[in-house]
Amino acid sequence: MTIELISVGDELLAGRIVNTNAAFISQQLAEEGWEVLRETTLPDDLSTLKKGFEEVCGRSPIVIVTGGLGPTCDDHTRAAAAAFYGCGLVFDNKVAEDLTRRYGPDLTSLRDQATRPERAEPLLNAVGTAPGLLFSKKDSALILLPGVPQEMRPMLTNQVIPYLKAHFQQKKKRFVETLHLCAITESEIDTFLRGKAEQVQIGLYPGYGMVNLVLASTDLAALKKIKEEVERAFTTHLFSAPSGKLEEALLHFFVKNKKRLAVAESCTGGSLAAVLTRIPGASDYFLGSIVAYSNELKMAQLRVSADVLEKKGAVSAEIGAEMLRGLFQVTTADVGVAVTGIAGPSGGSAEKPVGTVWVAIGERDTPPHVVRYQITGSREKIIDATCTRALSQLWRKLVYGVNP
Amino acid sequence: MTIELISVGDELLAGRIVNTNAAFISQQLAEEGWEVLRETTLPDDLSTLKKGFEEVCGRSPIVIVTGGLGPTCDDHTRAAAAAFYGCGLVFDNKVAEDLTRRYGPDLTSLRDQATRPERAEPLLNAVGTAPGLLFSKKDSALILLPGVPQEMRPMLTNQVIPYLKAHFQQKKKRFVETLHLCAITESEIDTFLRGKAEQVQIGLYPGYGMVNLVLASTDLAALKKIKEEVERAFTTHLFSAPSGKLEEALLHFFVKNKKRLAVAESCTGGSLAAVLTRIPGASDYFLGSIVAYSNELKMAQLRVSADVLEKKGAVSAEIGAEMLRGLFQVTTADVGVAVTGIAGPSGGSAEKPVGTVWVAIGERDTPPHVVRYQITGSREKIIDATCTRALSQLWRKLVYGVNP
Repeated sequence: MTIELISVGDELLAGRIVNTNAAFISQQLAEEGWEVLRETTLPDDLSTLKKGFEEVCGRSPIVIVTGGLGPTCDDHTRAAAAAFYGCGLVFDNKVAEDLTRRYGPDLTSLRDQATRPERAEPLLNAVGTAPGLLFSKKDSALILLPGVPQEMRPMLTNQVIPYLKAHFQQKKKRFVETLHLCAITESEIDTFLRGKAEQVQIGLYPGYGMVNLVLASTDLAALKKIKEEVERAFTTHLFSAPSGKLEEALLHFFVKNKKRLAVAESCTGGSLAAVLTRIPGASDYFLGSIVAYSNELKMAQLRVSADVLEKKGAVSAEIGAEMLRGLFQVTTADVGVAVTGIAGPSGGSAEKPVGTVWVAIGERDTPPHVVRYQITGSREKIIDATCTRALSQLWRKLVYGVNP
Repeated sequence: MTIELISVGDELLAGRIVNTNAAFISQQLAEEGWEVLRETTLPDDLSTLKKGFEEVCGRSPIVIVTGGLGPTCDDHTRAAAAAFYGCGLVFDNKVAEDLTRRYGPDLTSLRDQATRPERAEPLLNAVGTAPGLLFSKKDSALILLPGVPQEMRPMLTNQVIPYLKAHFQQKKKRFVETLHLCAITESEIDTFLRGKAEQVQIGLYPGYGMVNLVLASTDLAALKKIKEEVERAFTTHLFSAPSGKLEEALLHFFVKNKKRLAVAESCTGGSLAAVLTRIPGASDYFLGSIVAYSNELKMAQLRVSADVLEKKGAVSAEIGAEMLRGLFQVTTADVGVAVTGIAGPSGGSAEKPVGTVWVAIGERDTPPHVVRYQITGSREKIIDATCTRALSQLWRKLVYGVNP
């Protein structure tokens, strides 16, 4: 059963926005065991869209289209689909009632947004005004969704995927397991799994020392066996969080254990705190960060000694440890993380090249662990990878007692 | 002259990575006045790629392909292009010399990476091992680039765009002007420009109260006239930076004026400092941030009064002003920014709903300006938009003496 995606929008082809919808839909479908064979981005042009539908629907039985369903003059996806199926447009009372209930009776786009091709069923949109449209046949489907990601995503998850599962499910049920791992590379897991998993389909979604591993199979026993092997081999790398984000797992750990965290940052310049505070509820355990970007703030706010700064330099194991000690002095945190390094592109030396980073982690009144990392790449990558390394080091120390 | 893009990679179709290359290439081409008509993502499969090249090159004279040029067994783009042109493969000494110079004589992938289709010219890759390939004819071109963005981007900018300009330039020279504006919406500029700019092509690239406006025309006088009208109408919104980022303009302003900045953050949780420190050289003016996410840190680090916290709440104009005053007490900064607000999704009330934000900005020993913003959307959006508002407010106050 082949699936193709069509993304509609001049703003995509002009590069004004990045197409995140295609990746989201592909990943959701992959987790259910469907494969996307091709993605095509088309402009907001009626005849190009109609010809595009002919071409793509002629090749693939399931086609998911995003974008161009709004009420403005440059939205043509609905009309193109109606023209492709040679059907007229009708007013849909169910959609009109839903829009009136959510937006009141004065929504100017109501008549437009509640008008649908006769052959399509509407898919209600809980977030915005444009309903999705489903053209369903026995062996094929053309599914139109709005282009705004916040609107499209729940419609895909709650309506489209259940529809596809009900109508196009493989004969054998597919089982899926997802594992989240930190302080590890894709290739370490890939090497471990090679040759072991013939009945199991493997998806590896890496990012700076984090990997989401998706295992899928129709053979439940084979799936469980592989999953357990991975869990056994990489125990101290595992974490669990609905979002797949380590900072969410950390939040739950800290809240559950009634511990509070503070951090002291130099080279990450606030990014470590930013990552932690993007998760709702961070204020339940996170006291804050001293972003001591300058030596002035390192001395004044974190009580780092001018002498050590002079002798060892701001980027050194000693300063990492002093920043952490100071953090415990000026806050009541139970656990602390301090980071100092050279994000570049300038400021490196032979002894301490760009990408040299020290991460000091400790609990109050216990000796800290100070680890040196050497990270390659751009300034952005060094900052982001430092945050990931620091959070992984924190997680593995707290949860598994592992120090790298 | 129509251009199409092909993105190659199973990792794109499985949703493991988001396709940022297509947007980048489209935007760069748009700034030179070329339009991308269609983008197609294809899997790493030799025969699918060959058929894809036939289809796309049959339709569009200029085709730019990214991905699948590496040395591993799942890279098929080179072989597919050779098959499409019906030509053999040859060893390229120029590429081999370049790779040897950069990686030494023991690069295991040297023989593979220096092998190219006979009909193609190599495009040297300054960052990675895979050279690009250019199949050039009088009226058409097929251009293959690596998929890694850090490798592809400089090759596009430094080699492909100059090649396209030299061979496929429109008969009339096109002039391009870019303006960066802050504290403004796309629709304000759109409304202003409507009907005014018939000879001028307009690109608006918005983001949370920032807009990059790209004006292009073959009529230089018309272009200059429109540019001056925009500059006159929106003077106090203008900034200038090679990256198009306000934080870069701020860095240059601070360095030039020998002033130093510190910030105090609550709801942005480190993101404001993170934005500022992503720009290389931020340490030349940025002292740091006190991320006082908890009341404890607001009191201990920023000397905020417990009494005011109790009476007015942490999210209030008074606490914004106190955070700023404290920031000047604990640092030697010349200029300060303090931010407090409710990022949500919980914590809002009727009086202070989620998205209520106060931004206090001032120079040392002068009265601060404290502004309330009401931002709608997700926690992520509220955090990001607060950073943008705060930086815009700072820029307009310092450079134009404007207080919102």
